[in-house]
Amino acid sequence: MAVHELRVSLGDRSYPIVIGAGVLAGNDALARLAQGRQVAVVTNDTVGELYEARLAASLAGAAVCVSIRLPDGEAYKNWASLDRVFDRLLQERFDRQCLLVALGGGVIGDLTGFAASIYQRGVDFVQVPTTLLAQVDSSVGGKTGINHPLGKNMIGAFHQPRLVLADVQTLRTLPARELSAGLAEMIKHGAIADPDYLAGLERDLAALRACDPQALAAAVLRSCEIKAAVVAADEREAGLRATLNFGHTFGHAIEAGLGYGQWLHGEAVGAGMVMAADLSRRLGMLDAAAASRLRETIDAAGLPVRGPAWAPERYVELMGVDKKAQQGTPRFVLLERLGKATLQRVPDAPLRATLLDCTG
Amino acid sequence: MAVHELRVSLGDRSYPIVIGAGVLAGNDALARLAQGRQVAVVTNDTVGELYEARLAASLAGAAVCVSIRLPDGEAYKNWASLDRVFDRLLQERFDRQCLLVALGGGVIGDLTGFAASIYQRGVDFVQVPTTLLAQVDSSVGGKTGINHPLGKNMIGAFHQPRLVLADVQTLRTLPARELSAGLAEMIKHGAIADPDYLAGLERDLAALRACDPQALAAAVLRSCEIKAAVVAADEREAGLRATLNFGHTFGHAIEAGLGYGQWLHGEAVGAGMVMAADLSRRLGMLDAAAASRLRETIDAAGLPVRGPAWAPERYVELMGVDKKAQQGTPRFVLLERLGKATLQRVPDAPLRATLLDCTG
Repeated sequence: MAVHELRVSLGDRSYPIVIGAGVLAGNDALARLAQGRQVAVVTNDTVGELYEARLAASLAGAAVCVSIRLPDGEAYKNWASLDRVFDRLLQERFDRQCLLVALGGGVIGDLTGFAASIYQRGVDFVQVPTTLLAQVDSSVGGKTGINHPLGKNMIGAFHQPRLVLADVQTLRTLPARELSAGLAEMIKHGAIADPDYLAGLERDLAALRACDPQALAAAVLRSCEIKAAVVAADEREAGLRATLNFGHTFGHAIEAGLGYGQWLHGEAVGAGMVMAADLSRRLGMLDAAAASRLRETIDAAGLPVRGPAWAPERYVELMGVDKKAQQGTPRFVLLERLGKATLQRVPDAPLRATLLDCTG
Repeated sequence: MAVHELRVSLGDRSYPIVIGAGVLAGNDALARLAQGRQVAVVTNDTVGELYEARLAASLAGAAVCVSIRLPDGEAYKNWASLDRVFDRLLQERFDRQCLLVALGGGVIGDLTGFAASIYQRGVDFVQVPTTLLAQVDSSVGGKTGINHPLGKNMIGAFHQPRLVLADVQTLRTLPARELSAGLAEMIKHGAIADPDYLAGLERDLAALRACDPQALAAAVLRSCEIKAAVVAADEREAGLRATLNFGHTFGHAIEAGLGYGQWLHGEAVGAGMVMAADLSRRLGMLDAAAASRLRETIDAAGLPVRGPAWAPERYVELMGVDKKAQQGTPRFVLLERLGKATLQRVPDAPLRATLLDCTG
């Protein structure tokens, strides 16, 4: 079975993404990076039990290799977990030349990447994403961070990995709900940047949901290509990169209002994309058939297509602390057509109409 | 009285340092940066009481301006203080376009700069250093961070300010001991890079210790020029920048062993420089007259010239977690002559001899 490799171009911070079935075991690129260094694998109890042993061959050349297991779940993406990592690294006297390996989903990847970015003012790290969402989203772009009680991902940094290994075999143990959450981000990539990819996802949805490795590897590759192209053009999120937040202004409000962990991030983004498409239609940008087709695709991926039944004022309040906000006024990523996104401020009336029609 | 201005050249992260007596009040560069933005002044109880009001004119054009006062002291350069800053910024709904102003010494500067580097993955900040040490050291170079119970400055980031305002009038309220601690870093700049500057400091020591504004402004300017030149050539501390750590391997060991806050950082660096010069002499690099002259200058600046009376093994152990260490073996910044530094590993025997002779 083919192994895909993609290079994210960011000057001296460029790195490869290796995608395929079984790429975890005996990977040369990881072995070269680990050779002679202090290495810490950061993972959680669930994923560590399933996959940590597969990394052993690649890490055999390390000077020392320790395992740091954190509790599993978004609730632990916080300072206390980060500090457990720092405690261990300092107890083991890890220096600036050490290497952190993030083995797990988005929580582990974001937290480990952030730990790497601020441990001794920055050390190298490798992403080994084991969820579909992490493979297509958080492993590309260098966004790292933790949550704060007053907002998700509010504390963080941009820090690029040296290597990403996306092994689609690890997705077989993923709950169906989490697979769907990953599909949400892939549908998003199609919707903002590539109508052919979106059509391909619609066609292959059954194979993807059944964890067909060829279909998964091809789709993960295309999603990573799209995200990598956007990030390479706009690393610090000045403009273009913000289109990757399609569905996220509404989605973050849903997550914040329900309390993190009630809906998966991808589920909130699923409903958020339906809302953003509806808003695009109301503003005369997207035609009704396209908005409706996107809604059906999101539904067929096993994702929610309506937000929780809150008053529009509640949504607006929750969107006020969104990171894309400029002094309180949120901007929205909207669709001009399927495959083309744009960022703009929105009048109150159509926003309220969307919040009334697409929720409850 | 002349106002000096120096530009730190770091591509699109370049910034000016404005140095002089009275530059805090009604500063145009700060007013331009603050115009229309959400601004938070982060300071401590002591400095805030003395100097925060002087910033009012420069910050009058801000959209909103809040004051965050932290307890005074190195013991508070920790995650708890950082989290107080984040709590307030999120409560006030500060977005990514906000501006943080660090008004205080190194603790406030390092902590506020680090807060700026990781709040919403990075916002702008301005340094207003009010101690001599911060004016010549922590305000140039973009090093930010906090302490960890297992090591000083172990958690941090490189994040450049947009502007530094060094007002030498604020040094009049500085305790003599802290003024001497600042002189330690200035003597270091002369010792590693500029023998003429070192001779000038020796000549002007009395005026500097008496807080003569002209002498202080000229010396702060020269120290900032030296550090800025080193940082511009080597922002990420790969090689040249490490020479700024002259005296710091020993100094950090002293601080760590005594418990932070017993000796001031500059005091530990003072004794550390005497030890590093002694080690340079033993290795046949620095002549005995030069080592002795440096020792006398450090003494005349009101700084300690001997480390605490610990066994060499204790020093070696304490130096093991130094950030310059590579897998446990510390490298030392040594002097080839006054004005020229180099970085190298050192055999055990001369190191032990220095640790026995220069302590107790």
